[in-house]
Amino acid sequence: MSSHPEQSAVTVLGLGPMGRALTGAFLDAGLRTTVWNRTPGRETALVERGAVGAGSAAEAVAASDLTVVCVVNNDAADAILRTDAVADALKGRTVANLSADTPGRAREVAAWAAEHGIGYLDGAIMTPTTTIGTPHGVFIHSGPGDLYQRHRPVLERLGGTHTHVGEEIGRAAAYDIALLDIFWTSMAGWAHALAVARAEGVTARELAPFAKGIGAILPPIFEGTAAQVADGSYSGEDNPITSAASTMAHIVHTSEAHGIDASVMRAVEGLARRVIGLGHGTDGFLRVAELLGRR
Amino acid sequence: MSSHPEQSAVTVLGLGPMGRALTGAFLDAGLRTTVWNRTPGRETALVERGAVGAGSAAEAVAASDLTVVCVVNNDAADAILRTDAVADALKGRTVANLSADTPGRAREVAAWAAEHGIGYLDGAIMTPTTTIGTPHGVFIHSGPGDLYQRHRPVLERLGGTHTHVGEEIGRAAAYDIALLDIFWTSMAGWAHALAVARAEGVTARELAPFAKGIGAILPPIFEGTAAQVADGSYSGEDNPITSAASTMAHIVHTSEAHGIDASVMRAVEGLARRVIGLGHGTDGFLRVAELLGRR
Repeated sequence: MSSHPEQSAVTVLGLGPMGRALTGAFLDAGLRTTVWNRTPGRETALVERGAVGAGSAAEAVAASDLTVVCVVNNDAADAILRTDAVADALKGRTVANLSADTPGRAREVAAWAAEHGIGYLDGAIMTPTTTIGTPHGVFIHSGPGDLYQRHRPVLERLGGTHTHVGEEIGRAAAYDIALLDIFWTSMAGWAHALAVARAEGVTARELAPFAKGIGAILPPIFEGTAAQVADGSYSGEDNPITSAASTMAHIVHTSEAHGIDASVMRAVEGLARRVIGLGHGTDGFLRVAELLGRR
Repeated sequence: MSSHPEQSAVTVLGLGPMGRALTGAFLDAGLRTTVWNRTPGRETALVERGAVGAGSAAEAVAASDLTVVCVVNNDAADAILRTDAVADALKGRTVANLSADTPGRAREVAAWAAEHGIGYLDGAIMTPTTTIGTPHGVFIHSGPGDLYQRHRPVLERLGGTHTHVGEEIGRAAAYDIALLDIFWTSMAGWAHALAVARAEGVTARELAPFAKGIGAILPPIFEGTAAQVADGSYSGEDNPITSAASTMAHIVHTSEAHGIDASVMRAVEGLARRVIGLGHGTDGFLRVAELLGRR
């Protein structure tokens, strides 16, 4: 057994698909894992694998120095944590909240934790449930550095890459929001492309290999344009935003000619046209990031 | 010299950044390459490299069996091609139009070409100028199969991958529109993510490595969800669209709390909410593709 008792036990609150995946990874790593879920029954298969089913949230958090919370959002986390019994049981212990929510809501939960003498780390899981317990998981954490270092050995039993992105508690959620912004906007583009292609007689299976090719060029473009944005230089030499806006108009026109809603691309084109209207038509499209950031 | 005269010469109309890259690749491949651009002067460096500068568009197209057109859109292509002199000179020859436009506009140019006894291929270049003449270029072509096969040896001198996506002349533009839809929607997500991150104190350079990670998961997701769409099955087992919509609301809220326009994500969330409102809340997000395709 470990000589650090806090490194051999963990509690998981919330047993949705992700909470169950986290619990499974902790069990596979040999940790004494106590679980609780608001709706009973979700723990059955996990208890068969060796998890300890607690009778209440307060009993669950009392069983471990570290409690990992993974519920749908911070309203759900609050509903579990913010009772006298749970707050008392957590005093002197630590919560690592991996529920997805906004930076502002992370700060609110942290303020409550501080008032009650509870250590608080906020975090985000950037990869699907299937990556948990494998080298492919990506976890982001924020909060006090010493607290993170203390619980890092347990958190790392989840496998994958863990990055502490800062002491300021809202930072993990800020990264999460920004990355999900990229993800869901891209997925909307993909869904729309499938609809337009189908209207033109091109099937999903025909489009997919080319869509993969487009997806593959995005990461290096993200890297290259991040440098542009950091330097405040938005070269549009090979691809000015006027040319991008013209392409966007083609997409809107083709969609609407088929009766397909183009609200997303209309909004994208609107941003490009605003940049052009402000006199930056020879800049690249990433000038939109600066436009959006202006107060 | 080649025993096929049509395979040793080519004409390029339009000498913007892409037209110049195409010309450079043809010259490097040893083809007799005749060039013309509406605005004179763009050909100077290419003529120094061995290109033949024509005095008019009609003179240019008369020099080769195949003329590649690469201008900003089909309005610009029409302005060059649709004169009596050019149409006469093109009779019995072939145009491969690599200008970007809609499938409908491609069909219009093809109809004009057919009326004038001109062979017509439409096409799209899916990769940046820097890929031209390298193995990394991606070219899509549509139009009569025998015409494509005849000119394929010249077109392939541009390097990269050339795919004939169908006889129907609009198909190359349909693929192009769909793929650019993915590209520019994704870029809008990236620009917005950068603005939101910055408002939260996360710099472009800090976000970039994680953004690359998100970009890298898109191609396999495109492939997997294409199969879903093709089968009409939209499993949301691990990630129902209700959960995606909740995330989208977090993104909108965080953006607007910083005074950042969230019009694109609001439109994306609107599509998700419509799917939920139609009773498909347990489906995955790609159900949006079906919603968009309904007439």
